[in-house]
Amino acid sequence: MRIFIAGMDGYLGWPLAQHLAVRGHVVAGADLFLRRQWVKELGSHSATPIASMKDRLAALRELGGLEPEFWEVDLTDYASVERIFREFQPDAVAHLGECPSAPYSMIDVQHATFVQVNNVVSTFNLLFAMRDHRPNAHLLKLGTMGEYGTPNLDIPEGFFEVEYRGRRDRLPFPRQPGSFYHLSKVHGSNNIMLACKLWKLRATDVMQGVVFGTRIEEIGDDDRMLTRLDFDECFGTVINRFCCQAVIGHPLTPYGHGHQKRGFLPLRDSIQCLTLALENPPDAGEYRVFNQFQDVYDVTELAFKVQRVADRLGCRVAVHNLENPRQEMEEHYYRPDHQKLLDLGYVPTRDLEGELAVMLADLLKCRRRIEAKKALLIPSIQWSGKLQKVGFVDELTPAK
Amino acid sequence: MRIFIAGMDGYLGWPLAQHLAVRGHVVAGADLFLRRQWVKELGSHSATPIASMKDRLAALRELGGLEPEFWEVDLTDYASVERIFREFQPDAVAHLGECPSAPYSMIDVQHATFVQVNNVVSTFNLLFAMRDHRPNAHLLKLGTMGEYGTPNLDIPEGFFEVEYRGRRDRLPFPRQPGSFYHLSKVHGSNNIMLACKLWKLRATDVMQGVVFGTRIEEIGDDDRMLTRLDFDECFGTVINRFCCQAVIGHPLTPYGHGHQKRGFLPLRDSIQCLTLALENPPDAGEYRVFNQFQDVYDVTELAFKVQRVADRLGCRVAVHNLENPRQEMEEHYYRPDHQKLLDLGYVPTRDLEGELAVMLADLLKCRRRIEAKKALLIPSIQWSGKLQKVGFVDELTPAK
Repeated sequence: MRIFIAGMDGYLGWPLAQHLAVRGHVVAGADLFLRRQWVKELGSHSATPIASMKDRLAALRELGGLEPEFWEVDLTDYASVERIFREFQPDAVAHLGECPSAPYSMIDVQHATFVQVNNVVSTFNLLFAMRDHRPNAHLLKLGTMGEYGTPNLDIPEGFFEVEYRGRRDRLPFPRQPGSFYHLSKVHGSNNIMLACKLWKLRATDVMQGVVFGTRIEEIGDDDRMLTRLDFDECFGTVINRFCCQAVIGHPLTPYGHGHQKRGFLPLRDSIQCLTLALENPPDAGEYRVFNQFQDVYDVTELAFKVQRVADRLGCRVAVHNLENPRQEMEEHYYRPDHQKLLDLGYVPTRDLEGELAVMLADLLKCRRRIEAKKALLIPSIQWSGKLQKVGFVDELTPAK
Repeated sequence: MRIFIAGMDGYLGWPLAQHLAVRGHVVAGADLFLRRQWVKELGSHSATPIASMKDRLAALRELGGLEPEFWEVDLTDYASVERIFREFQPDAVAHLGECPSAPYSMIDVQHATFVQVNNVVSTFNLLFAMRDHRPNAHLLKLGTMGEYGTPNLDIPEGFFEVEYRGRRDRLPFPRQPGSFYHLSKVHGSNNIMLACKLWKLRATDVMQGVVFGTRIEEIGDDDRMLTRLDFDECFGTVINRFCCQAVIGHPLTPYGHGHQKRGFLPLRDSIQCLTLALENPPDAGEYRVFNQFQDVYDVTELAFKVQRVADRLGCRVAVHNLENPRQEMEEHYYRPDHQKLLDLGYVPTRDLEGELAVMLADLLKCRRRIEAKKALLIPSIQWSGKLQKVGFVDELTPAK
């Protein structure tokens, strides 16, 4: 298949390119390197040292045997997107080219606007380019489980049967996310759903859980293959942050009471699932939703797991809760469905502690890079609009 | 109350300003006159001749006795919105400053993008300005009944109680609109809902039915008071278009089978309802949804009503269906709730035929302006992406 990856320089985009190339797909990509800029804007950098796109493309060529096409363009510019479609004629588009950070979208009105406009417009451009140039192509769009929020109900995969005042209908499951970033994904989901209906396009909307991990098989020991791993408050996801904290002896910091529950999956599973979705496209006109994660954990439970595995590697760290900079439920019901990817053949990595050990070993080599930016391990972007570092909360420190 | 009207030059904005001024409120407004530009871009003009803002402001001063403040600014520019908030310190904001056209948003990718970005960003700017400058102000946001689409269920006012797999929750009613414009309103609704929750803002989201009519009481016979009335395919709503067709003897043109059902209300009721909502603000943190319309009609039924009333005024016209340029259900269940405004004291205008007679009499005076642009009475913007005039459909012509 000819697969175009929007956002090929990212945490997921880069390993996905490797995995698809090894499986014999013709891979092309685009990126404007905004993620590198955003992380720099926050004063941070990736824990793992990452290669330039030039070196990455050379490595990808060695891996897959093909010269990968790449465009350094802004996907919010329609002419650029059309050019890619004309030149590459993709069978599938993996849209990972959005700004993926809730805190970044909550900094101020400019950041909220940037995130929503960037994410909505790039998706629009891909949809219209598909309609006009590749109507049979498949759009695989990265959404997030965060689109659903935490309702007091089971969460189906996108749609549910409802009975209301004696009548029945199949409706999109209502989405109540907790940040303007998450809402940008909801806006995109809604636009895609309509485009599929009107133009008979095919799309998979991936409600992905929180991804963690430093590697997939293909990364091996070629440094050019390493993907980025962020630990700042905006782009670092929770397990990745805990592991970065652990390797420098910084307390692990659940927010608030720390009993938020989320679905999680290792990087290797994310890439496996995205590949399964790409290799099994939906029908024409079909808008399908996959809830993509394997296990649900409580954040504090995860902190203790990281603490335990780190301890075995000689890193002793405390777990110390922080005031919650977000507004979210800290204890809640959470039971989302996640069957469709298993039906397609997804084989989950079941060994969380093993996965954490691999990550921690990788990150121990990056200790100095994390140490240099450790001030960024305490968040300061608050959902109230205040921009001020939160403090530790003593009375919530969980007993060890 | 100090009330700021975003979009004061529009079909609703201008009569709302008059009505509020007469009721003793301090009215201020902003407009960039984009509606005048969009209608010109389509090659059309308002059926009613409309005055310049300079003349309108002079008339408004005579009406209310106060010098109204007015800003010709772009509401997608945050600095401009902040300036208005600093200078005027509104108690309430009536946000009518969005692009209100489904067909306009379906022209091409540029128009789809423009409509969504314009509408989402202006709303964001008002929300952040409220948070930072007037946290107790009330945002009255104009949405549309079209946000809901046509589900096979009753439509509640915004939220419903659901039982799913034995658990219950109160959820936002899922929205499945049929155009990128309608989706821009859904995106706005979702952003406002979150802002109210996070920042304890107060907002009323008005799901308004289709408005028709040329006048409210205050317009009287001062030509400066006249509001615009569009009949082109983008900005003309269905009854207004039928009435413009009737006065020049052009067939009335339901789309497709013509049995789409919608909620309707006269212009005077729209202004009455918006005023009720403004004068009865919600609590801090409350996001409330009003379904604002009075009666549900089938589009063909309306065509026959217009035909009958026009006939009495000496205008004989046929009803002749067109191929449907849209993709929508042409026969469907439709029973939305609309109780909350009645509870606040809304007294509906019950005499539809009387209202049509007033409109037709007003429009008879504008016959030449409509005649000059009559080619625009047949739509050419198709939901499929095709831009080509649709044809009449003979076999669907309803028997007289």
